[in-house]
Formats: sequence, structure tokens, C-alpha cells
Amino acid sequence: MELLRTICQIPAPSGHEAPLTEFVLRYVEEHQAGWTTQPTILAGEEFQDCIILIFGAPRTAVFAHLDNIGFTVRYNRQLVRIGGPVAETGYRLVGRDSQGNIECTLVVDEQTGALSYDFHRDIDRGTELTFYCDFRETDTTVQSCYLDNRLGVWNALRLCETLEHGAVVFSCWEEHGGGSVAYLAKHLYETYGVRQALISDITWVTEGVRPGKGVAISLRDSLIPRRSYVERIRRIAEAAGVPHQLEVEGSGGSDAKELQHGAQPWDWCFIGAPEDNVHSPDEIVDKRDITSMLALYQVLLREL
Amino acid sequence: MELLRTICQIPAPSGHEAPLTEFVLRYVEEHQAGWTTQPTILAGEEFQDCIILIFGAPRTAVFAHLDNIGFTVRYNRQLVRIGGPVAETGYRLVGRDSQGNIECTLVVDEQTGALSYDFHRDIDRGTELTFYCDFRETDTTVQSCYLDNRLGVWNALRLCETLEHGAVVFSCWEEHGGGSVAYLAKHLYETYGVRQALISDITWVTEGVRPGKGVAISLRDSLIPRRSYVERIRRIAEAAGVPHQLEVEGSGGSDAKELQHGAQPWDWCFIGAPEDNVHSPDEIVDKRDITSMLALYQVLLREL
Amino acid sequence: MELLRTICQIPAPSGHEAPLTEFVLRYVEEHQAGWTTQPTILAGEEFQDCIILIFGAPRTAVFAHLDNIGFTVRYNRQLVRIGGPVAETGYRLVGRDSQGNIECTLVVDEQTGALSYDFHRDIDRGTELTFYCDFRETDTTVQSCYLDNRLGVWNALRLCETLEHGAVVFSCWEEHGGGSVAYLAKHLYETYGVRQALISDITWVTEGVRPGKGVAISLRDSLIPRRSYVERIRRIAEAAGVPHQLEVEGSGGSDAKELQHGAQPWDWCFIGAPEDNVHSPDEIVDKRDITSMLALYQVLLREL
Repeated sequence: MELLRTICQIPAPSGHEAPLTEFVLRYVEEHQAGWTTQPTILAGEEFQDCIILIFGAPRTAVFAHLDNIGFTVRYNRQLVRIGGPVAETGYRLVGRDSQGNIECTLVVDEQTGALSYDFHRDIDRGTELTFYCDFRETDTTVQSCYLDNRLGVWNALRLCETLEHGAVVFSCWEEHGGGSVAYLAKHLYETYGVRQALISDITWVTEGVRPGKGVAISLRDSLIPRRSYVERIRRIAEAAGVPHQLEVEGSGGSDAKELQHGAQPWDWCFIGAPEDNVHSPDEIVDKRDITSMLALYQVLLREL
Repeated sequence: MELLRTICQIPAPSGHEAPLTEFVLRYVEEHQAGWTTQPTILAGEEFQDCIILIFGAPRTAVFAHLDNIGFTVRYNRQLVRIGGPVAETGYRLVGRDSQGNIECTLVVDEQTGALSYDFHRDIDRGTELTFYCDFRETDTTVQSCYLDNRLGVWNALRLCETLEHGAVVFSCWEEHGGGSVAYLAKHLYETYGVRQALISDITWVTEGVRPGKGVAISLRDSLIPRRSYVERIRRIAEAAGVPHQLEVEGSGGSDAKELQHGAQPWDWCFIGAPEDNVHSPDEIVDKRDITSMLALYQVLLREL
Repeated sequence: MELLRTICQIPAPSGHEAPLTEFVLRYVEEHQAGWTTQPTILAGEEFQDCIILIFGAPRTAVFAHLDNIGFTVRYNRQLVRIGGPVAETGYRLVGRDSQGNIECTLVVDEQTGALSYDFHRDIDRGTELTFYCDFRETDTTVQSCYLDNRLGVWNALRLCETLEHGAVVFSCWEEHGGGSVAYLAKHLYETYGVRQALISDITWVTEGVRPGKGVAISLRDSLIPRRSYVERIRRIAEAAGVPHQLEVEGSGGSDAKELQHGAQPWDWCFIGAPEDNVHSPDEIVDKRDITSMLALYQVLLREL
């Protein structure tokens, strides 16, 4: 889990993913020699801070978003949310502005819910603050801020080790309205004819999806994927004997929103480990669900 | 109205339109020999469960969505909405899961509004339930669930009989966030240069749009179409003497949302019969409004 | 400010921008001989009521929306909003229907907030009403309805006078859900390779953005632009010594929404003078902020 620990500690709030992008590019360069297949790497200004890895002749693309939630400094010590972080007075926040490194504390006004920071000086307007990373590992769990979606990124990078045919996509802005998947999806469809997607992201522990019971295959969230595609995935998961749970939600979304609404006929399915304490500094995931997540992606990339 | 009765009885909740898609494809194959023009049929995986029929040299495309509203089975007998169905305790719901056919009853918690089902056994997670179809016809009205949008589909199929030049599009996911019109519109524009659209869908009876007074031409809903296009349509409708009403709403939407927001310069107008008891099992439409709807589409496809 | 006064007085509610489109086209034809560079003019049905001017070899596109907020006449003297106008009983509204010119008064029901008009006769269904334009100029301010976004249009037209390389885009529907920028952006990217954008629009006076303190560079609103692009803009503005303010908001949007969500990798930044009395008939802007807005656009189009 050293890779996971490392990427949990690199802040990448939506719009400012570049530090994590650089880490992933460096990681791919350093490790690809040991992979079954060496990918073609698509990156650079035409892809903003996103990365696409093309392995062999891809039929399916795996989408893992790089960005995380956080806060932007406004005026008079006010904070504005990046995505939907949980906010509790006392949470430790970190960042950096023109005067140097920042480690401050979140303050939530009990009356109004207004957000501000407690620090010995004013912070530059527009500075991003993210949760301080306290990475905790036990025999059975990992716990940290930003497992959503560093675990999805970790899953994608581990998948690369044995992948023969497939596309692995690292996207931006997922936590804050999206903005990269439309052009990534267009490029994949028009260049490689790929229109099958798996969303490598983290979901919620609920009364129907329990920790330790296996990776969740989402039958729907706020959007509804095409039934026939999800049924194929379920049959492959069952035949392979990979532990998994079926999720049904009425809310929530992912990079799949942009696939669903884009101008290509993408089929998509969200498949991810469930976590508790969602969008807080204390997100926690059962290691068995991480294991089954990776196992299921390995099977699906072969058989879909 | 036998065709209408038949298609009202084929469940096609958003994301699972395939049974209705198959019916429409079969219907086209069986009936096109008797049509004025034989269309080119675009269907298959590149169009997911959608269908495009191309007649002659099309200038205008008619969009009719195949899907209907309903419910998805969650956990512990809970239900989640597909689209925006009206929910009342006692509504009859039908479906099918691994254990066979289902006919159960909707239950709405009076305190919380939470939805569940009453049935002698648990239903598989992710199963779609739809309204039981009680199709009722009088001399002056038709009444059923899913007139929205089986009437729009019916109108499109009847229009095919005499159509010389035009595109007829059967789309998916309209009731639940959309997801097919972006690529259908792209294909039509890039392949045929078509950028005029009519939305063959059903609207609401209101204080300004009355049953029996003719098909409604919508001047706006939550979105506003280009004025000059709507004015052309109004002039053609007036010159042709087809009974019609002008609708002005501040809310509501249709497949036109995806045309408006897509990457082609589509002009669009929603034209449809008004119904009462919207999104309930008892949707009712005046037959005169169905007649004027078809008549107006026939004129517009010739003259636009 | 005669140009500004003139265009404030041409109603162009979302969907019915054509009168302002015609004015801008005529203005460009009459004035381009005196400009540093003569642009290629893209307009006509393939662009609906939008206009693109291409100067030299463009690297950056300036987007100014033509449309304004207003009201649509519904039934029984009811009004429906176009965009988000402020509504107060007594506001003077103007329009034109089949019976001639209209000058009426807005009425807001104190209990329900419902909108209607007070006039000596019924107004045709679907008629657009806009604020009566009372253009007021002092030594230090301009005040009128629709400075948002006639000032953005004015800024774009003044920028044309000295522009050597760049694209100037006049868009539609910005105030009411958007609908033109997706295809304009696609055309610019695919034809000219442009993917840098500046949004020439008007923002709000707040506790952090004060009148007279310079044009606002927005670091974020409801969406978050790519950090690296905004940083480049800040450095150019600082180096050039153009008075400016940094804005940080959690809400609000602009034509940038469609750039962010479109299928090209656009970088964008909102740069505009702040106004008070937003979306009312009494929008007011400090002339110094107009001056610095134009100056900053001139520098940025050279240096970005």
C-alpha cells in the first residue's frame, strides 16, 4: 500500500491536478518496463492535465479521476467548497500560497454553516486548501482522506501491470462538475473505436452494500446505464467467482455522467470498493474490497 | 389505436428500452413496403437501443423517445424512481426477475414519502417495475400509462406512412436525464446536414392548453428555442389550418435539451398533444389532439 | 459611450438575439476598414444568430454573449422569466406583438411572488418583454439595464480595433441555459486549433470586488478553471500593470460552462468589470473598470 499512501499525500484539488499528473507520468515511465504490455502514453496540452494509456488493441476504457475535494480561500477568511467535502470545525487543512506553506484549521459557523479558516495570518485569495493526510493502515483496512479516488487511481495503476488490451484514463474535475471526460471519450471513440467504459471510483457503504462483502457493481446511481451492458458484467463477475455486491442508488454520480451525455454511444458501469466516512478526512475501506476490485477489473478487461 | 395499445403494453423503462426497440424494428420491417418511401434503417450497437429512419433527402428530424418512467428495486423492499412518476399507494406495478413475473403494489410512506412495494416475496435488487397497463379507449379519448411517450412514437410511425423526405428518430433515456440524443444529433448533422428538429412528445393540459383544442406548439419550456424557427412553424400551421394551441411554460424539458446543448446548431420545436394525469397510470389524451398532431407533422415535414 | 448606449437599447432576449446580431454585423462592416486587421466574418444559418470574427492567426478566443434577460408572456397576464431578472412591481417593460408596440408595467404578487403585467390590453402569448432602457452616464459611471452583457459586447468590439491575432465570438442563450458555445467552440478548435478562451462578461460587486478597483479576474465561480492557465493570466496582468482584482466565488456561471463541459480541452478565464444592481434595470459600472477591462484584453490577446 506504499503507492496508495504516496498518492493520498499529493494534493490535487479539482482544477489543480498537475502535481498528481506529474507523479503518475513519472510512475508509468519508471514501472512500465516490468508490465506485461508497454502502453502508448497520451498526455500534454491537448489533454490538459489528463493522461490516457493505450494497451494493445483496446475494447474497454477504465476511467479513474485524479482530482480530490477541498476548499478555496475567498475574502475575509471565508472558504468556498471544491466539490462536496464534509466540513467539521477542527479539521486540519493544508496548502501553500505566496508566503509559504499553510497548516490551518477549518471553522464551521454553527448558526449559518459558513466556512472559514483559523490561521495566524491571512491566506492569499484563491489558494486551495485540502485535508491534511493522516494515512492509517491495519491488517484489514486502509483509512485516509481522498481514498476517493486515490484508490481508483491505485486500482488503475495496478491493473496496468498485467493489462494486454485496454485503455486506462486519468481524468480531471470529476469532483467539481466534470470537464475532461467529454474530450477524452471523444478521442478514445474516434481514434480507437472504444465505447465500453468501467468507472474505477469509490462508492458508499449503505444498508445494502457492506464493507468486506466485495467490490460494488452499481446497477444505477443518479443515472441509469444500459441494462444489457451491466448484465454482461454481472455474468462475467459471477462466472469468475469474484466477490461482489450489487448497488442500487437514486443519487450520486461519477465520470459516467459525461460519458452518458457525450456525443458517442458509450456503455458504462461504475465498479468500485465501498467506503465509510465519505468525503471526510477519515475515509475507510476494507482491504478485501480492494482486492476484489482489482481482481474484477483484471477479469473484465480480458473478457468484455 | 391497436398499434398504440400494443406499444403501451411493452415496458421500456429508461436504460432498458430494448424490448420496444425490437418491436419498432419489426414493425418497420413488416410495414415499410406499404409506405410511400422506404427508409434507410440505422440501428445496432453503434446506436445502442436507438433507431434512425432516413427517408429521401431529409431536411427535418422528428425525435420520439422510446423510454418510460418507472421504479428500480433497491434494498429492503425500497424503490427508487426512474424519471418522475407520480406515486400513490395502491398503484399496480409489474416486472420480471430471476424468480419470474411480478405483479405487486406500490406503497408510499405517508410520513416520509419513501417508496416501497407490497409483494409476497422479495424482488431481485435492480429489477425495474413499471405501471400495469390498463388501456382504455372511448369515442373521444385514449387513456393509459405511458401515453407519454407511446403517443409520440405512434405519431412518428404513422408519419412514416406518407413521408417522402425526413428523418425519424427513436431515442432512449429521455425520462431520466437523457443520453442518446447527443450522438444521434451529431450523426444526423454530420451525415445528412440536418439541423431542424421537431420533438414528437406529449405535454400537459394547463389553464392555457385545453384538451380537444388541438396539438400544442410549445413556444418555450425550461429552455427557449430560436424565435425565428418557431415563427416559421407557426406560420405553416396557420396557413394549413391545422387546429393548434400555443404553449408557454417556464419548466419542463424534452429531448430538445440535448439538441440545444449539443455541438451542432440545431433549431428545435416541441409539438405534441396535451395530456391530463401526467406521469400517472391514468394519462388521458383527447383523440382530436392526436389527429391534429399527426396532421401538423405531415404538413411540417413537407414544408419546413 | 454612444456605441454602448445604442446596443443597450436593442432588445435581444435569449432565443431572439437576431436584432442585435444584425446590428453587430452592420457595425463590423462599417468600421472594419479602420481596424488594424480586417477579420474573416463567420455568420449565417450554420451559426444561428451567433457571429465569429477571425483576426490573423488566432491563439485565443474572446466570448461575449449577445442575449439579455427578460420575461415571456404566458396566459392570463402571467409572465415567465427569461434568465434570472430581478422583479419589482413598477419596473417598466417593453415589447412588440401583433397589435403593435407595448410599454407596460411589471407586477409581483406579494404573497406568491407570481409575475404579471399591467397593460390596457392582453398581450399575445409568447411575446418577449424586456426592461425599458434608461441609459444614464456620469463622469465616473454608466448605468442602464443590460450592461450585462452589452458592456462585454462593447469591450469585444473595441478590442477589434487593434486586434492582430485572435477570435472574437458573439454567442447566444447565455442567460438562459446556454446553447451556442458548444458548436462555436468546436468550430474554433477544429478549424483554427484555438483552445484558450477569455469570457468578456460582467460580474458582481461584492465585499471582495469593489467598484473602481479594476477589472475582475475570476479565479473561480460555480466552476473552477485550470489553475495553470489562470496563473499565466495573473502574471501577464501584473507585469502589464493593468489595475485588476481577483475574484473568488462559489456560484455564478458564464459561457465558460459550455467550454468546460464541451468535447475540446479549452482553458478559460472570466475577466470582466464588476457591476452593482445586477440583473435589474439599474445596473451600474465604474468607468475605470471598463477602461482596465479593455486594456487587459488588449494585453492578453497579444501575450497569451
